[in-house]
Amino acid sequence: MKKIPVAILGATGTVGQRFIQLLADHPWFEIKALTGSSRTAGGRYGDGVNWKLHGDVPEQFADMIVQDTKPNLDVEIVFSALPTQQAKEMEPEFANAGYVVATNAGAYRMPLDIPLMIPEVNPDHVDLIKTQQAERGWKGYIIANTNCSVATVMLPLKIWDDAFGLESIHMVTMQAISGAGYPGVPSLDILGNVIPHIGKEDWKLENEPKKLLGKVASGKLQVADIKISAHANRVAVIDGHMASVSCGFKNLASEADAIAAFKEWQIPAEIQALPSCPDRLMVYRDEADRPQPRLDSNWGEGLAWTVGKVRECGVLDMKFVSLAHNTLRGAASGSVLNAELLVQRGIISR
Amino acid sequence: MKKIPVAILGATGTVGQRFIQLLADHPWFEIKALTGSSRTAGGRYGDGVNWKLHGDVPEQFADMIVQDTKPNLDVEIVFSALPTQQAKEMEPEFANAGYVVATNAGAYRMPLDIPLMIPEVNPDHVDLIKTQQAERGWKGYIIANTNCSVATVMLPLKIWDDAFGLESIHMVTMQAISGAGYPGVPSLDILGNVIPHIGKEDWKLENEPKKLLGKVASGKLQVADIKISAHANRVAVIDGHMASVSCGFKNLASEADAIAAFKEWQIPAEIQALPSCPDRLMVYRDEADRPQPRLDSNWGEGLAWTVGKVRECGVLDMKFVSLAHNTLRGAASGSVLNAELLVQRGIISR
Amino acid sequence: MKKIPVAILGATGTVGQRFIQLLADHPWFEIKALTGSSRTAGGRYGDGVNWKLHGDVPEQFADMIVQDTKPNLDVEIVFSALPTQQAKEMEPEFANAGYVVATNAGAYRMPLDIPLMIPEVNPDHVDLIKTQQAERGWKGYIIANTNCSVATVMLPLKIWDDAFGLESIHMVTMQAISGAGYPGVPSLDILGNVIPHIGKEDWKLENEPKKLLGKVASGKLQVADIKISAHANRVAVIDGHMASVSCGFKNLASEADAIAAFKEWQIPAEIQALPSCPDRLMVYRDEADRPQPRLDSNWGEGLAWTVGKVRECGVLDMKFVSLAHNTLRGAASGSVLNAELLVQRGIISR
Amino acid sequence: MKKIPVAILGATGTVGQRFIQLLADHPWFEIKALTGSSRTAGGRYGDGVNWKLHGDVPEQFADMIVQDTKPNLDVEIVFSALPTQQAKEMEPEFANAGYVVATNAGAYRMPLDIPLMIPEVNPDHVDLIKTQQAERGWKGYIIANTNCSVATVMLPLKIWDDAFGLESIHMVTMQAISGAGYPGVPSLDILGNVIPHIGKEDWKLENEPKKLLGKVASGKLQVADIKISAHANRVAVIDGHMASVSCGFKNLASEADAIAAFKEWQIPAEIQALPSCPDRLMVYRDEADRPQPRLDSNWGEGLAWTVGKVRECGVLDMKFVSLAHNTLRGAASGSVLNAELLVQRGIISR
Repeated sequence: MKKIPVAILGATGTVGQRFIQLLADHPWFEIKALTGSSRTAGGRYGDGVNWKLHGDVPEQFADMIVQDTKPNLDVEIVFSALPTQQAKEMEPEFANAGYVVATNAGAYRMPLDIPLMIPEVNPDHVDLIKTQQAERGWKGYIIANTNCSVATVMLPLKIWDDAFGLESIHMVTMQAISGAGYPGVPSLDILGNVIPHIGKEDWKLENEPKKLLGKVASGKLQVADIKISAHANRVAVIDGHMASVSCGFKNLASEADAIAAFKEWQIPAEIQALPSCPDRLMVYRDEADRPQPRLDSNWGEGLAWTVGKVRECGVLDMKFVSLAHNTLRGAASGSVLNAELLVQRGIISR
Repeated sequence: MKKIPVAILGATGTVGQRFIQLLADHPWFEIKALTGSSRTAGGRYGDGVNWKLHGDVPEQFADMIVQDTKPNLDVEIVFSALPTQQAKEMEPEFANAGYVVATNAGAYRMPLDIPLMIPEVNPDHVDLIKTQQAERGWKGYIIANTNCSVATVMLPLKIWDDAFGLESIHMVTMQAISGAGYPGVPSLDILGNVIPHIGKEDWKLENEPKKLLGKVASGKLQVADIKISAHANRVAVIDGHMASVSCGFKNLASEADAIAAFKEWQIPAEIQALPSCPDRLMVYRDEADRPQPRLDSNWGEGLAWTVGKVRECGVLDMKFVSLAHNTLRGAASGSVLNAELLVQRGIISR
Repeated sequence: MKKIPVAILGATGTVGQRFIQLLADHPWFEIKALTGSSRTAGGRYGDGVNWKLHGDVPEQFADMIVQDTKPNLDVEIVFSALPTQQAKEMEPEFANAGYVVATNAGAYRMPLDIPLMIPEVNPDHVDLIKTQQAERGWKGYIIANTNCSVATVMLPLKIWDDAFGLESIHMVTMQAISGAGYPGVPSLDILGNVIPHIGKEDWKLENEPKKLLGKVASGKLQVADIKISAHANRVAVIDGHMASVSCGFKNLASEADAIAAFKEWQIPAEIQALPSCPDRLMVYRDEADRPQPRLDSNWGEGLAWTVGKVRECGVLDMKFVSLAHNTLRGAASGSVLNAELLVQRGIISR
Repeated sequence: MKKIPVAILGATGTVGQRFIQLLADHPWFEIKALTGSSRTAGGRYGDGVNWKLHGDVPEQFADMIVQDTKPNLDVEIVFSALPTQQAKEMEPEFANAGYVVATNAGAYRMPLDIPLMIPEVNPDHVDLIKTQQAERGWKGYIIANTNCSVATVMLPLKIWDDAFGLESIHMVTMQAISGAGYPGVPSLDILGNVIPHIGKEDWKLENEPKKLLGKVASGKLQVADIKISAHANRVAVIDGHMASVSCGFKNLASEADAIAAFKEWQIPAEIQALPSCPDRLMVYRDEADRPQPRLDSNWGEGLAWTVGKVRECGVLDMKFVSLAHNTLRGAASGSVLNAELLVQRGIISR
């Protein structure tokens, strides 16, 4: 079967590097183009990139010539790791020109006709694509994944929402430095320290989940009616965002019920069929001191959610701790899984 | 004026070392005895201690002979840095024998007749001393300070409780490694990591504040009726416990009111008169990314609370971030301030 | 072909855990017994171990009952991760009883009749085994691997010794905390700090290399005549010991020669045949800022040496930086490779 | 007595901030002007600076208007914290215009007529000032302090050079992140890592000491004839550069002699008279595991050298470990002490 040709927009940054790593030997997709800024375009990728992942630049891409980020690429899907401002400008151009834009950027997460997706959480939101194309007159479309901190908590929240009905969510996150890209957080700011502020992360944590937990009917998204409070902190961790989460339920639930909901969750067949889906997507740890970023970020090749410490909350109903790998589950892999779902559902044809 | 002779029980540990540092040149108190375990008793303090503070062991104490922890010391006040189990056994013996036991240990924080005190928060709880002596038949008494994580948040909570009436408190802490003493947290556990569990800290955070915010009338303590949920995390910070706190109020308050309550708080005259009271006890930072442990733990010689990020909470009413130095405000200094208050109120006479 | 039954002595510690991880699916060896201290013996391994590696205890060992460390095990080879004192006492008993003792402990590294081995460096030292058995009257024998800091530098040193003849070596190491085991280094000591002292590590670095670079003739070891100065430092790194090394040569060499010696080194056929031998054992980095522990410790599945920064030394002749994974190359894997070499050479028969 | 008016060039950076902190209440100097880049010039200092030191911007300077860096300031001395390129261009203009330029920048450290000074090490190099003015026709002059890593080791080296005659020096440094300024080292590069490369630091460490240990006669500097090899590493430490140093001597010395040289060194009377001179400038630690950056960087208000671990070197003669605070002893304070020496010697008149 022929592979689908894809491009990576903004391929030299840290998320772009992850895209390359993830797609280098992908069974369905084949990287045919890499784009970069004016600084790197026209040169070898191996020369333009400051490779920050373990190992070396995969050989087959080191010699690829970096192109300008323009909708003249001979591919079907573009994975976007563009900076926000450039994403805002260029992603509609690509969508208009007929490309599928699977974006990790934040520019188009919130419009109601653009699916903000985690395949394990809200696969049916792909139904928004038709609405999007109809309303905007695009031949292609944009499908977005969430902010990395939001990704960290979404599957557990979805499971509890399905089981008990979420009324309120209180989240305090402790987030890894890799979430800020490179050079990102100065070491003088974070070594032996905690920074109680990360850009507009609180707002994203308070709004993106309402969209992901919303219902799509007749091509329209009804955003979920949940009260959310979030406070994002940066900690001296390399990879792995952790969140301390308290939830208020519509339906009463015992601690045993709440734990069982996590433990008994099964990967849907549709998701299992995706090439990037690992054996485990939900890891429940019984130990009082887990999950921990250093020990638990890499379950399921960095795609699993690790949860633990489910117990009654003295203020809301129930609380837990959630952890996921922010640059894998939280970024590049999210876009790849979104694209895989589109193929699996036949929205992109192979 | 003659100084009051005091002893430090458990003087070789990290809290014991802080007591020595704080009391070395105290205007009211004079260290006359140091006690230690069977390993160190009988030897020079300088030989028995593994000094972990900056600088060297103060010269006048290096040659002092460490004594057994028995109530035969020629002092009036004993500052206790004993380990919990030993504190449980020995502190009543000291109190029974007529000593004032100003303890940092956790063994006797919760009995209703033992004042659990932060002078800036609940000075009137000293009225429990008479009840304690009457009920237990002790010539002396025990006065305790809080767990270090609780100390971190108490003055801000007290201020908001006075102003708006607290109904509920949700706290997620990020706590420094020095809170675990020495050797304490293994580096393999915490370097580049977060541990979402600290012994019984959640329970302490959910219960001690109710006692501190309670009212004493006719020698009886009425514990405060507040719903509290707490989750304590250990982070790779040397000194300074930080807490992300959301509060529900009885009386409506605007963000401006909530900030003003912090900014306008004044040090009570009685507290200002204490020798250890610094110029500033409450520091409000307007920056979005403050307080931070590395930048803000040492205000007021490590005794001040630094607060910031007051804003509306999407689930409860209002939230903020609180920070204090855990081994100064949170431990040894707390006991010293308690003893100073007893002198200031004439309960201990000079 | 039948697998050789082996045991792990001291299986619950951090090195013991690595042995289990490495031998869980080994093509030549099969773990038949695990031993532990009086605390863990008699119970399930899964209950006795405080598992510190990524993932969980491999299932097949979680239920194995931990045995006492006594030479009554039904195996041929024992891999020893015993603490020094116990190793000193028990390893000769095992060797005397006919076991092959492949030890990572430090108790028997220095006697001249006990091979101190890194297969890539001094495979011919296996000839000492006969001498050892003859002199000591043992049916079995002990074969040791080096201290983890020594392992870090030995292959590069061997390569330069072969090429240019080493006269003097000056080493300053920056070593990872995992080298101290668990709980090991207290976080209060190492977070944001460097400790310029690691037990007897300087002595080991100044003496073990002379034994490894020595020649064996007629079953006798002639220790190498090289001047060595070493200074070991502990740094806040999880895994990966790094060394800044300056060398004085017998034969003049240009910088280009010195680099070429590293780049052109080939894995000997005998070593390539070992099951644990990775594709790459020597990685040369041209970048000025490499090797780095976080980026380069895992080459060759943690068994490779990464070297770089070869340049003239203003005091001796030539200098470089060497890095290796201290708990893989430096500890458990070293013992496993030693045992594999014994099988490969037919000294242990399958 | 009237204070001498001074300016700080490049006052908003991290070294500029230290200058302000050090000179805020100086008995001899009074800050009359602050200069900055085009971004900050014309605005309030409090608005332009991203204050990174503990506490707040000293009140008296927060409202001062930042000026352009041009030689039209109404002061006698300018303390330069300019970036290298700007220093290269502007410092000669200031010197030519009659200002005393006490610079922390690296642009003019190496010309033989410009004194590269640490007052405790080579105060007589002030004699180069006349040569400098004569040769260059300047009314003012430049006096430089060393790179921060060089400062870390210079007093101990001077003491041994005076006592035993240095022939060779081998240095491996482990340097703090604050040495790179702000934002400086990205946290992704240094957290849990060591970077074996710092710009041109090796070259500076191999060359600046030869100038400082040189002799001035008849206004001419004779650079010292010493072989030096250096390797600079960046480690995850906030403040405090540490160096592992081995030395070859002209005259034999025992370990006892070598230690005594450090312990018996006395602060010269001329240095004691300087306002910034602390009580202790040389701290010798007998413990095997000292000095350590976190415990020993702040002796003598950050101006002292802490040394320890003197012992025989297996390759050269004797080795030791040296530590100093890189942004105090190593940067701003060095310039201030240089200026104080000029006043003390009457070269600048009060």
